[in-house]
Amino acid sequence: MAEKINLAEKLGLFNEYWAPRSIARFNGHDVMVVKVKGEFVWHHHDDTDDLFLVLRGSLDIEMPEETVTLGPGELFVVPKGVKHRPVAREEVHLLLVEPTGTPNTGDPATAAPRREA
Amino acid sequence: MAEKINLAEKLGLFNEYWAPRSIARFNGHDVMVVKVKGEFVWHHHDDTDDLFLVLRGSLDIEMPEETVTLGPGELFVVPKGVKHRPVAREEVHLLLVEPTGTPNTGDPATAAPRREA
Repeated sequence: MAEKINLAEKLGLFNEYWAPRSIARFNGHDVMVVKVKGEFVWHHHDDTDDLFLVLRGSLDIEMPEETVTLGPGELFVVPKGVKHRPVAREEVHLLLVEPTGTPNTGDPATAAPRREA
Repeated sequence: MAEKINLAEKLGLFNEYWAPRSIARFNGHDVMVVKVKGEFVWHHHDDTDDLFLVLRGSLDIEMPEETVTLGPGELFVVPKGVKHRPVAREEVHLLLVEPTGTPNTGDPATAAPRREA
């Protein structure tokens, strides 16, 4: 049975920040939605690019050399290996795509558990 | 120089239907936007899942056993190998993710050329 995924409906199922929910699988990747607010940790991913699509709110992606500010309908790919820190001054809703099992902090010891929504 | 991608801005750059524009690269995949209207061809991809996210309009994804209808903010992954035909009764704007080089018809002989926007 094919299941379509409504992003807003999935985002309505939880309220925790920085706790991504997997909503679909795609070529070995998890497609996730997440609510964020405040400053995340500086981190990088050695083995994967990091795709952010803003669905609601305004997100700063701080990198060592520059900061990119994304609004709704804006997308950014942090290349693998590049240090970054997402900062949300208000509640922000995001779509993320990462290889299944990627730790969100770049480090399995501190990563949020992977959850389905 | 990091480049953020505004989906609506990219979609404003062209008007042809069924002619995807690559807007970002991610882990060997192209992230694309496309405008579609009418019926596409029945096809499948042997080697990749096919991710559709509707940005505007209503898209039917016909499959042999069922049809999934997606509205704005709704996402669907056609698993690899599954025959499908996208049908748009009105103009529809989509975000697509496919491995770089994937023919959009499933067949290099009939595929749209890969273009950047």
